[in-house]
Amino acid sequence: IVGFMSRIWKFFEKAWSLAVREPKKAIHGLKVGMALSLVSLFYYMRPLYNGVGGNAMWAVMTVVVVFEYTVGATLCKCVNRAIGTFLAGALGLGVHWIANQSGEKFEPIVLQISVFLLAAAATFSRFIPAIKARFDYGAMIFILTFSLVSVSGYRVDKLFELAHHRLSTIAIGTSLCILTGMLFCPVWAGNELHYLITNNMEKLAASLDGCLVEYFGIHANVNAKGEDSDKVLQGYKCVLNSKATEEVMANFAKWEPAHGRFYFRHPWNEYLKVGAFLRKCAYCIETLNVSTNSDTEAPDILNKHFSKFCISLSSCSSDVLKELAVIMHTMTKSTKIDLMVHEMNNAVQELQCALKSLSKETIIGDSKSGIEEGNKSTTVVPLMEIVPIVYISTLLIEIAARIEKSVEA
Amino acid sequence: IVGFMSRIWKFFEKAWSLAVREPKKAIHGLKVGMALSLVSLFYYMRPLYNGVGGNAMWAVMTVVVVFEYTVGATLCKCVNRAIGTFLAGALGLGVHWIANQSGEKFEPIVLQISVFLLAAAATFSRFIPAIKARFDYGAMIFILTFSLVSVSGYRVDKLFELAHHRLSTIAIGTSLCILTGMLFCPVWAGNELHYLITNNMEKLAASLDGCLVEYFGIHANVNAKGEDSDKVLQGYKCVLNSKATEEVMANFAKWEPAHGRFYFRHPWNEYLKVGAFLRKCAYCIETLNVSTNSDTEAPDILNKHFSKFCISLSSCSSDVLKELAVIMHTMTKSTKIDLMVHEMNNAVQELQCALKSLSKETIIGDSKSGIEEGNKSTTVVPLMEIVPIVYISTLLIEIAARIEKSVEA
Repeated sequence: IVGFMSRIWKFFEKAWSLAVREPKKAIHGLKVGMALSLVSLFYYMRPLYNGVGGNAMWAVMTVVVVFEYTVGATLCKCVNRAIGTFLAGALGLGVHWIANQSGEKFEPIVLQISVFLLAAAATFSRFIPAIKARFDYGAMIFILTFSLVSVSGYRVDKLFELAHHRLSTIAIGTSLCILTGMLFCPVWAGNELHYLITNNMEKLAASLDGCLVEYFGIHANVNAKGEDSDKVLQGYKCVLNSKATEEVMANFAKWEPAHGRFYFRHPWNEYLKVGAFLRKCAYCIETLNVSTNSDTEAPDILNKHFSKFCISLSSCSSDVLKELAVIMHTMTKSTKIDLMVHEMNNAVQELQCALKSLSKETIIGDSKSGIEEGNKSTTVVPLMEIVPIVYISTLLIEIAARIEKSVEA
Repeated sequence: IVGFMSRIWKFFEKAWSLAVREPKKAIHGLKVGMALSLVSLFYYMRPLYNGVGGNAMWAVMTVVVVFEYTVGATLCKCVNRAIGTFLAGALGLGVHWIANQSGEKFEPIVLQISVFLLAAAATFSRFIPAIKARFDYGAMIFILTFSLVSVSGYRVDKLFELAHHRLSTIAIGTSLCILTGMLFCPVWAGNELHYLITNNMEKLAASLDGCLVEYFGIHANVNAKGEDSDKVLQGYKCVLNSKATEEVMANFAKWEPAHGRFYFRHPWNEYLKVGAFLRKCAYCIETLNVSTNSDTEAPDILNKHFSKFCISLSSCSSDVLKELAVIMHTMTKSTKIDLMVHEMNNAVQELQCALKSLSKETIIGDSKSGIEEGNKSTTVVPLMEIVPIVYISTLLIEIAARIEKSVEA
């Protein structure tokens, strides 16, 4: 029992720390509670109750099912639910009419077949990527409403009234959700996406710095920072796996109206492209990190010789990344960035020169294996560095285009 | 209008090609239709109707909402729905009783507050990772049922009967879902995961082969195969982004009972580890691919000198990957794999020797830049190759352990 209690206690501690770390999520919980309380008022106030009838239950249900963390997701679900219900209701009424015309004997058969066919078609349509991305929920609601309407139509009279009620209660539920979602501490998917990408850029820059610094052993005397720098180094791993999140966010962001610094037709797809570039950079850093952690170490002389160039190059590239993050954050054009890219390219050329001279210098004094290993661990670095540059220059063009768009809009 | 028609036509064509490519998905659509028809039979047959009453609607709803593509997902949702409904129903009755005791004036207030608090808590709990992974849906159903029971309790008499009916209809719906899901062409999440991982291994092996072969220009005269080999080369990109899918699959696979060659407590987490290793290999291939596509080309002499070693190494590694895929597929231990790893290690050593001798040989005749570039493009390759080997050897230990487990179980 004590073990069980301590596990529960730990669970609560975890939950508390999550709430402290991300208060938005705790606030979201409160918002859902508030929306539900508001909706249940429809039940307690008699005049309203008489107006909407026992179907007010649907409003409660709508709130529970539709209320999502971000405004975009909520809007998306609301629109889906409304369209799905409306379409299915209309179709259901149509099928019901046809079934009625065909005589009492065939009525259930017609209804059964229509349910079977439409449900199968709608379910299959949820697998088609274009539909899955935007109308997955709507297709489900379509099946649900259609089967409810056509099946219950056999029993419940006043079918038209039922459909009408469902629509009006859903309208109440969705409007409540949208209002509470947007008025009290709204969480915009677009904002989150923007923040995620900016954050990822900074993490990448920090990782790139940290990786090389660790390799060339400058931090060797600052062991106290060990854990901290390890965390920084692992930063790029978040970037590696952020694809799914980014896509979901961008998808929801497209549903959102203008808010804050974002206009209605903000080019969210550009964010995905930037995200893809960042991920490619992260792959390079991953490989770089692995190769610097491998057992083959270059001799000290070579290390010292190259550390200057490598570190200057990496700091240049990470500066460019940081500056890009600032640009993204403030959404303004910066004149500094061109200068920085120029500096970075210079650093690349310096490193290449150093490499060329290497083959002359080192042959003289070193042993074979020294050269081989030295070559291996140092020549890997520049190639890794060149790759981000290729990306960053394309990135720059992208970003410049993107920023121009958002400045113009 | 013509444009609109042609778009619709294209849409249907796409859907058709998807259905042909993955007939399982089309069959799934039919299964949902079938389950819905079965459930609606409850409406049409009078004796059943009298038994369950107008609440049979809940059974329809359960089928629509719960029926998922894989058996694991369906089971997971069913269990979640059952537990969530039961817990919330019990709590709702309890709160209702308390509210009743506190007098008519305070009744709505008590109910309101309880709805607010519980909904907020449950919504927040959905953000906690441990709950999100397994009981996300259950928490939603909990909120839904609780608010429905406590809110409608104020109006509807015979509350106990309502709760009872909901439970029994949900039981009917879930059992129908599970039965149709498992009996007719079941899609097991575990199977899909197994297939995904095996497939990824093969893709990686093909990419690794294709990448080096292209670089060393053996295929230069077989341009007809261009598109085909491009597709093979891009295979590793699927591996890069498969993390989210794998995790979802493994999560659902844990819910599934024993089926086919998989036993009940199959070590699904091992699949995730294998998947992570594969992803790391894919990162390396990504970088390798980028560096071989870069503009700096090594002189022909060096290329010829190294192509033998590099290609033999890469073919060894991809053979190991393929053999691993076969092992995974048949789930048996193979004696060949040890031999192959041994061969691969030999190839690594040969390449390293070649690198060592390079510094001696090439200095004599070549120009500076030749050496530099030669070094660059060829020394990158072995490091890339060594990395997979480190992984593969750890992978081997993993796999061996995993296979022993599954053979024993």
